[in-house]
Amino acid sequence: MFFRFTTAGESHGKALVAVVEGLPAGMPIDIDAINRELWRRQQGYGRGGRMKIESDKVEILSGIRHGQTLGSPVAMMIENKDFVHWQEVMGVELPALAGTPQKPDRKGGLKNDRSVTRPRPGHADLAGGQKFGVRDLRNILERASARETAARVATGALAKQLLAQFGAEIRSHVIQLGAIPTEPLSKTWEEICAINDDSLLNCADEEVQSEMIAAIDRAKESGDTLGGIYEVVAKGVPVGLGSHTSWNEKLDGRIAQAFMSIHATKAVEIGTGITNAARLGSEVHDEIYYETGDDATK
Amino acid sequence: MFFRFTTAGESHGKALVAVVEGLPAGMPIDIDAINRELWRRQQGYGRGGRMKIESDKVEILSGIRHGQTLGSPVAMMIENKDFVHWQEVMGVELPALAGTPQKPDRKGGLKNDRSVTRPRPGHADLAGGQKFGVRDLRNILERASARETAARVATGALAKQLLAQFGAEIRSHVIQLGAIPTEPLSKTWEEICAINDDSLLNCADEEVQSEMIAAIDRAKESGDTLGGIYEVVAKGVPVGLGSHTSWNEKLDGRIAQAFMSIHATKAVEIGTGITNAARLGSEVHDEIYYETGDDATK
Amino acid sequence: MFFRFTTAGESHGKALVAVVEGLPAGMPIDIDAINRELWRRQQGYGRGGRMKIESDKVEILSGIRHGQTLGSPVAMMIENKDFVHWQEVMGVELPALAGTPQKPDRKGGLKNDRSVTRPRPGHADLAGGQKFGVRDLRNILERASARETAARVATGALAKQLLAQFGAEIRSHVIQLGAIPTEPLSKTWEEICAINDDSLLNCADEEVQSEMIAAIDRAKESGDTLGGIYEVVAKGVPVGLGSHTSWNEKLDGRIAQAFMSIHATKAVEIGTGITNAARLGSEVHDEIYYETGDDATK
Amino acid sequence: MFFRFTTAGESHGKALVAVVEGLPAGMPIDIDAINRELWRRQQGYGRGGRMKIESDKVEILSGIRHGQTLGSPVAMMIENKDFVHWQEVMGVELPALAGTPQKPDRKGGLKNDRSVTRPRPGHADLAGGQKFGVRDLRNILERASARETAARVATGALAKQLLAQFGAEIRSHVIQLGAIPTEPLSKTWEEICAINDDSLLNCADEEVQSEMIAAIDRAKESGDTLGGIYEVVAKGVPVGLGSHTSWNEKLDGRIAQAFMSIHATKAVEIGTGITNAARLGSEVHDEIYYETGDDATK
Repeated sequence: MFFRFTTAGESHGKALVAVVEGLPAGMPIDIDAINRELWRRQQGYGRGGRMKIESDKVEILSGIRHGQTLGSPVAMMIENKDFVHWQEVMGVELPALAGTPQKPDRKGGLKNDRSVTRPRPGHADLAGGQKFGVRDLRNILERASARETAARVATGALAKQLLAQFGAEIRSHVIQLGAIPTEPLSKTWEEICAINDDSLLNCADEEVQSEMIAAIDRAKESGDTLGGIYEVVAKGVPVGLGSHTSWNEKLDGRIAQAFMSIHATKAVEIGTGITNAARLGSEVHDEIYYETGDDATK
Repeated sequence: MFFRFTTAGESHGKALVAVVEGLPAGMPIDIDAINRELWRRQQGYGRGGRMKIESDKVEILSGIRHGQTLGSPVAMMIENKDFVHWQEVMGVELPALAGTPQKPDRKGGLKNDRSVTRPRPGHADLAGGQKFGVRDLRNILERASARETAARVATGALAKQLLAQFGAEIRSHVIQLGAIPTEPLSKTWEEICAINDDSLLNCADEEVQSEMIAAIDRAKESGDTLGGIYEVVAKGVPVGLGSHTSWNEKLDGRIAQAFMSIHATKAVEIGTGITNAARLGSEVHDEIYYETGDDATK
Repeated sequence: MFFRFTTAGESHGKALVAVVEGLPAGMPIDIDAINRELWRRQQGYGRGGRMKIESDKVEILSGIRHGQTLGSPVAMMIENKDFVHWQEVMGVELPALAGTPQKPDRKGGLKNDRSVTRPRPGHADLAGGQKFGVRDLRNILERASARETAARVATGALAKQLLAQFGAEIRSHVIQLGAIPTEPLSKTWEEICAINDDSLLNCADEEVQSEMIAAIDRAKESGDTLGGIYEVVAKGVPVGLGSHTSWNEKLDGRIAQAFMSIHATKAVEIGTGITNAARLGSEVHDEIYYETGDDATK
Repeated sequence: MFFRFTTAGESHGKALVAVVEGLPAGMPIDIDAINRELWRRQQGYGRGGRMKIESDKVEILSGIRHGQTLGSPVAMMIENKDFVHWQEVMGVELPALAGTPQKPDRKGGLKNDRSVTRPRPGHADLAGGQKFGVRDLRNILERASARETAARVATGALAKQLLAQFGAEIRSHVIQLGAIPTEPLSKTWEEICAINDDSLLNCADEEVQSEMIAAIDRAKESGDTLGGIYEVVAKGVPVGLGSHTSWNEKLDGRIAQAFMSIHATKAVEIGTGITNAARLGSEVHDEIYYETGDDATK
C-alpha cells in the first residue's frame, strides 16, 4: 500500500504521535535528519517563547531496526517535555485522582485554571465546541493547535528520505511577509539551497529578510501578526506521481489538500496559478515551455 | 458511510458514469434539477462547438425509486450522443472487428486518424503517456479531458439536493476574467442569486460581463485563451462539517482538493486567503468579525 | 492505486453497474470471457426460472479501447432485460408520472402490487427496513438481492484476466451439498479443471453430482432449500500478496471479507481451517509441508 | 468518521502502539478496564513463559482528558518491559553504535545472535522474507507475531466501552479444544457471563475445561500444539450496523475480516454457518425463528 499516515496528540498532552505506513522495507533511515527538521520547525523569528524552551526529539517506537525500515508501520513519538506542568490540566485521569479535588461543572466536565470559554476568531474553537458539545474549549484547541504539525514534520522527514531514494528533493522558503517585498521573491533552486538551516526566516534574500524582521518587530509591538507566502519547490520528481484517471488521485488536488490542512494556510497555487488567472493562455504556455515543465499530471 | 463518489468515462467514449454512495434513504430527488445543472455546464460564452451540439441528460441506473433515494449507490450515466461517429476511434473492440481492417503499429496498438502523438503543454499527455507507456496519447487525453466534469456536475447536483435538506445552498459566479475587472468583483448573496441561469458568463455585473465577452472575442481571434477567477459561496452550512481532529478530515483541505482536482484550476483560496498573505492579522480578524464568520472549522 | 471496485444496481432496476479501478494500462481484455462467466452464473440445477430467461451481457462503458485497458476506471453495465415489466414498480419516476395514478401511503411512499411488508427470515429485510425507516421492504431487498453478484462476477472476470497476466489461475467447484457426500470432496487441480462449463452443479464427481441433483429435487418438492460447500482454489499465485504488516492488509482477512460479503455465505475457511480446529499442530504442519504450502502470508 | 484504528510495533521492539480514530467526544473511558483486558490476554493455560513475565499496561498518549474522550485520535502505547534485553537485537540504531561492533552481512544487514534464517511452516516468514527481500527473517516475524494482538486488545477494550454506551455487550468463550468435547459446547449468555476473569481457559464448563487442560499437557509433553474453537457473542447490538448497500460494508464480511486477520485464525462462521452447509433451509430457519434472530443485516 502507498505512503499514508495518521497523527495523534494534544498540544499540551503527554506526547504527539505519528504512525507512517507504506514505507518500503530495507530503506536506510537517518534519525538525526528527522530531529534536524523538528529543530528547524522550532526556529524562526518572532515565534512564541514556548518554541525556544522545548527541543523536540523523535522517539522511534516501531518499524525501524538497525537503521533500516522493516516495511511495518513506523510509530514516532515526540514527548512533551513540559507535560509535568500540565499534568493536572491535560492529564488522562480526573484531577481529583491526580491530587486536587475539584467540582464538576454543569456539563459534567471539570473546572480548572486553564479552561477556555471564549472562542477566538479564526480558530476551530467555536465550530469545534458546537460540534462536540463542549463548554471548555481547551478540549478543542488542544488538538486544533499548530503544535500538531510537529508530528507532520517528523512524517515529512521520513517522506523526504523516501523521495531521496528516487533522486527527488524538496525545499521551501519564505517569499513574502506582510507585503514585503511588494512582489513575492523569485529565486533559483541554487539560491534556495544556499539558505542556512539556522536562517531566522528561511528567506533567500538577506536584505529582504532584514526588512521582514523589522516588520515582525513592528507588528509584535502593536500585538498584531503578519500574513506571508512560502514556496515549496521539488526537484527530480519521478514522472507519473498522482494520476489523471480518478478525481481523488490527481496530484494537484492531493498537494492542495496537504497544504490547506496546515493551520493558518488559506490559499494554495500550483506554479503561478494566481497570476495566471489574469493572463492569456499563451503567456502561461510560454512560461511552461521555457521554465518549468509544470503540471502535466493534472 | 459518508457521501463519496467515483466517476468513469472517456471524453468520446460511450458514456460517462458516476456512482454516488452514502446518500441517506428516503431523500426526494429532482432529476430535472440534475439535468438543469448539466445544461448550465454546457452554456457559457466562448466554449467549443461541441458543447452546443451535445445536450447532456442523465440516466439514473440505480439507487432511486419513485423519486426517492433507496440508500443504495446511485449510478448515473450520461450517454455520449456523438458516439456513433467515434465508434471506430474509441470502441471497445478492435476496429478490425468493428469493420475496418487496420495494421497494428509498432507498440501493438492500432493506428487511426485520431491518434495523438504530440503532447500538448499544460496537459496530462506527456506525464500520462510516460506513466502508462503509451504511444497514442489519445489513451491519456480521453480520460484527462474536462468532459469528465459532466459526471462531477451530476454528482454535485445530488450533493446540492442533500445539502438543501439541511438548509444549505451553494452558488458560484465569475469574478474576474483576463484581468477584467482589475480587482475581482465582490458581490452579495442576493446579487449572486440574481444571475440568470442562461447568463453567458455567470457574472453578477452585466457591464463587466460585456467587457469580459469582448476580451474573449479578442483572445479567440488571436487563437488564445483567458484565465479567470470564480467564487463559490455557501449559505446555511451546518456547523461542524469537517473536523479539526485529523489532518485529512479538515474542511479547508478537503475543499481545496475538490477544487484543485478540476481541470485547469491552479489556485484555491478560502475567504480572502491570497490577500491576507500580505496583511496584518488584525485586518483579517476585523473582516471575519463583521462579514463572514469564516473558517472556524479549520 | 490497487484494484478496487464499487457495484450499484437493484435486482429489478434498470441495470447493474460495476466500476473497477486500478487495472494497469495496456492489458488485453477478453469481453467474451466476462460474458461467459455471467452465463456460468446463470446456469446451475435448481435455480429459479428467472435465471433461465435473462441472459446477462456486459456492456463496457469506459476504460477499455481497442481491446485494451486505458488505465482509467472500467465501467460495466448489465442491463435488466426484463425492466420493461418492472418500469412501474422500480422506475425512477413516481408511477403517477409514469402513467398509473396511485395514492401515497402513510409514510409518503406509493403502494403498488409488488410492495413487500413482511420481512423474510435470514434476509436483510427487517434490519434494513428498520435502519432506513421504510415500510415497503422492496426498497431493501432489491439491493440486498443476490442478483448484485452479477456485477461482482463481471468484476471477478476482469480480476481473473489481471491474475492471468502473472500466471495465476482460480477455479471453484462444489464439494458438498445437503450433506452429500458425507465428507466434502477432495479433488486435484486437474480434476477441477476437467469440469465442463455447462456442468449442472460444477461438481468434479459425476456420480456424486447425480445424488446432489436428486437431493435438490426432493428439497424442491417440499418447498425447501439446501446448504452446501464450494471450494475456491488458486494456482500460480505470486508470492507476497497481502501483507503481515497491518491488520487490514492481511490476505486471510481480505479473502474472508470478500467471501462472507456474498449472499448466503455464512462460513469461510482457509485450507482445512475447520478441521484443524480439532487437531494437533503437528498434523496440520505435516499436511502443509506435503500438500499446499498454505498460508505463509498470514 | 467511523471507528477505525491502526496498530504498530514489533514483538520485541520498544513498544506497541494503537491509534484509534472516530470515537465520539465526551465519552467516559475506564483505563483500568483496558488494562484488565490486557491482563486477560496474558492469562490462559499452556501459554509461553513470556506471557507470565510481562504485565502489559496501556499508556494513553492522547485523545483522553480527565477521564473522557476529546473526539481526537486516542494513541495508546504498551511498552515492552523486556526491551532492555532486546536493545541490541531490535534497536533502532545499528548495534555498532549501540556498543557492540558487528560486521554487515552480504545483504547489508547485521548479524546477531537472534537472526532467523530458517522459515517456520504456517508463518509469514517465507512469504514475508521473499516479499521484502530480507535474509534475517526476524525482520518479518517480529511484526507478524501474535504479540501485535495486544494493541488490538487495547483497541477492542475501547470499542467495548463505545458499544456499552448503546447497551451492547460482547463476550467470548472457548467451546472446543483439540476435539474436546466432540461437539462444540453450546452455552447461554448467562453461562458465558458466569466465567471468571481468571479462568484458565475461558471455558464455561469446568469439567470439560479440565479435560482440555489435560489435553494441553499431553500435547506440550510431545512438543505439539492444539487447535480449538472460540465463540464470540454479542447482546443488545443496535439494529442497522453494517449495510446491505455495498459489498464492503456488509457486516458479515467485516466481522469475517476482523477475525481472520487474527493470527492462527483459519475459519470463521456466523451463527451455525458450518453446520448449515449440510442442512435444509427449513432447519436453519426454524432455528433462526426460535433462537437468535440472526443475520438480517447481511
